Amino acid sequence: MSRLKGKVVIAQGGGPTAVINQSLAGAVLEARKFPEATRVWGARHGVRGILAETFVDLSEATTHNLERVAQTPSAALGSTRDKPDAEYCQRLLNVFKKHDVRYFFYIGGNDSSDTVRIVAEHASQEGYELRVIHIPKTVDNDLPVNDHCPGYPSAARFVASAFSGINADLMALPGVYIGVVMGRHAGWLTAAAALGRRHDDDGPHLIYLPERPFSIERYLADIERVHRQRGRCVVAISEGVWATLDGKGGEIPLAAELMRGAGREPQVDAHGNIQLSGGALADELADVVRKRLGIKRVRADTFGYLQRSFPGVVSSVDAREAREVGEKAAHYACGRHTSGSVVIKRVGDYAARYELADLNEIAAQTRHMPDVFVNAEGNGVTEAFRGYLRPLLGDDMPCLERLWAPAASVGSDLPG
Amino acid sequence: MSRLKGKVVIAQGGGPTAVINQSLAGAVLEARKFPEATRVWGARHGVRGILAETFVDLSEATTHNLERVAQTPSAALGSTRDKPDAEYCQRLLNVFKKHDVRYFFYIGGNDSSDTVRIVAEHASQEGYELRVIHIPKTVDNDLPVNDHCPGYPSAARFVASAFSGINADLMALPGVYIGVVMGRHAGWLTAAAALGRRHDDDGPHLIYLPERPFSIERYLADIERVHRQRGRCVVAISEGVWATLDGKGGEIPLAAELMRGAGREPQVDAHGNIQLSGGALADELADVVRKRLGIKRVRADTFGYLQRSFPGVVSSVDAREAREVGEKAAHYACGRHTSGSVVIKRVGDYAARYELADLNEIAAQTRHMPDVFVNAEGNGVTEAFRGYLRPLLGDDMPCLERLWAPAASVGSDLPG
Repeated sequence: MSRLKGKVVIAQGGGPTAVINQSLAGAVLEARKFPEATRVWGARHGVRGILAETFVDLSEATTHNLERVAQTPSAALGSTRDKPDAEYCQRLLNVFKKHDVRYFFYIGGNDSSDTVRIVAEHASQEGYELRVIHIPKTVDNDLPVNDHCPGYPSAARFVASAFSGINADLMALPGVYIGVVMGRHAGWLTAAAALGRRHDDDGPHLIYLPERPFSIERYLADIERVHRQRGRCVVAISEGVWATLDGKGGEIPLAAELMRGAGREPQVDAHGNIQLSGGALADELADVVRKRLGIKRVRADTFGYLQRSFPGVVSSVDAREAREVGEKAAHYACGRHTSGSVVIKRVGDYAARYELADLNEIAAQTRHMPDVFVNAEGNGVTEAFRGYLRPLLGDDMPCLERLWAPAASVGSDLPG
Repeated sequence: MSRLKGKVVIAQGGGPTAVINQSLAGAVLEARKFPEATRVWGARHGVRGILAETFVDLSEATTHNLERVAQTPSAALGSTRDKPDAEYCQRLLNVFKKHDVRYFFYIGGNDSSDTVRIVAEHASQEGYELRVIHIPKTVDNDLPVNDHCPGYPSAARFVASAFSGINADLMALPGVYIGVVMGRHAGWLTAAAALGRRHDDDGPHLIYLPERPFSIERYLADIERVHRQRGRCVVAISEGVWATLDGKGGEIPLAAELMRGAGREPQVDAHGNIQLSGGALADELADVVRKRLGIKRVRADTFGYLQRSFPGVVSSVDAREAREVGEKAAHYACGRHTSGSVVIKRVGDYAARYELADLNEIAAQTRHMPDVFVNAEGNGVTEAFRGYLRPLLGDDMPCLERLWAPAASVGSDLPG
């Protein structure tokens, strides 16, 4: 096999995660060992920085700096929401050719893998030798072929920890609590709330996922039942749940349905998508419980950016695997001279194995939660899901303890 | 001094914190060593549990259980929002008399200290020998006489950590971010966001506190300036800021002012207070930036319950001090036969010393941030505040690292 010499360009795309910089450090430190890599460049703000030719020379980053960056959340090179089309990808390739770039590593989710695929196609058509590797990353956990995606276990750890604390809070001051979790299309991160439970009566008592249609009437009936039985109710709900329009057919985002019902117009972004972030969905979900069930103490939070960028809440398993998929990118491209997407497979209970998948299997697809992970009622997850996620959360998950003391024998003090 | 023998009752009131159970464990384990304490009872859900005589016998809780409960956030005995009046306090005293309770420890904030004060007055008037101790606790940090309050340092650690992660997030994907932090009357917790900064250009770039009147026009001008200069702007704002009604005189909660400006009616709770929780304030603050400044990428989160109940984010200093104020309660009451409120004083840089203050100095008062901690512009904190808070955050604060690599010499690859 001929030794293809040239520059490595690495970039980060999409939403930040707690461990995306582990992948960066893994790829950079490993690529620098290969004589094939004449220089390792980082592009600022993803594909945008490639077009603008704003590169930093990572061959000159110190090992200590990279090791500390690896432990820092959010994309250290900067990221972008750009979703390149064929013409954009052609321009990326032109920059690569101009600077003799022969290796391109893109750390990102669904859209990023599609960019990598298109760039590789253009290079192939022009006969320009280029090795491309998509390094997986997404808190949404929705890349196909992978058992799970780097970034997800740490975000899941945050969500599970948050709900265990909120459950303790609601035990102290009872009421109804609704936590809105990230995930526009898939419920993986919301489902992680279930791992906050320890005792049978712990919350979250109800979990609503985009994988099942959502009905306000069923939601209210569920909460009413749990609240009557437990004296409190903790709900985890995905920002991306879709409302069934009872009797009217069709589905629209719940946020929009609820706001319209309350006489407000939902916010729409530049692409015409209804904005799911912000507190409106949470406020409306709380409001309908207050009004329809007459429960006074109802609180709702939207977890927002905290769940993807909070420092120090990292799964040790996630940190290691994110590092390893970065290292494997260098092995596959610079060592074996292959292209594709690094994927994580599960072996045994629990170990991870890495493979290189064809980009066509990964690109621009969404992996939803399988039926076996969602309960029959569509308002919770199964034991199978808990078994799937548990080993990914890493060491030393906080374990909340209840006070264990007998009732005082009040009667014995009564006179007579 | 005669040895006053009788039962100890301990209870927890108000909002949960990350370390309130350290105080519980400290007081219980220490009180059990005193022969004066014939039995140590815990009341479920604060003063409410005393009235209902729902006590647990903490003399029979194991040391291991108490030690693990100490590391669990939220009030393990349960809490209450009841704010007893004179008649309510008389009924509390009647229960104490009925069960030969001679020591009453109440872990809580401003309202709880006032309850303790009134109960002590009634006991004194009736000549019933009762030692009462208020054990301080509040994430709001607003108890007078104290240098700071147990619970605050851990919540501050959460807020500072959150903003350091959010700053990294905004460096990767630039825009404007607004984080709404707890604190209806005092800005201590919001001010903690400043401790998330490391580099000069780190966020939060703007901090708005209830200690200063808030003007939408100044807020917009501040954000416009920072955004133009840095390409991003991170804002920390207290849920309790008050709007000046420009030219109209008087002040109202900002949440209400903003919502009315947008044609919505703010939610009002059972006591007629405008509800500050929920996402409405954050959404309105983001909306006004989008509309008036024309900045597209604007995000806003309300930190909500996470900041007071998230497990595993605890200041080591806070955990220790919360434990110690609990222990001191037993020493002051059962050992020295005194009553009062345990207070934390600062000595040197940094150590804590504990004293017993008169309940009249503490009860039902709010300690605001002093002028020396707020900057002249009223949109940030001073170095003096950073020096005040820094030692309280405990060991191993996450330290976010920036990538340090030179710009690649792109020109050298150009032909010619």
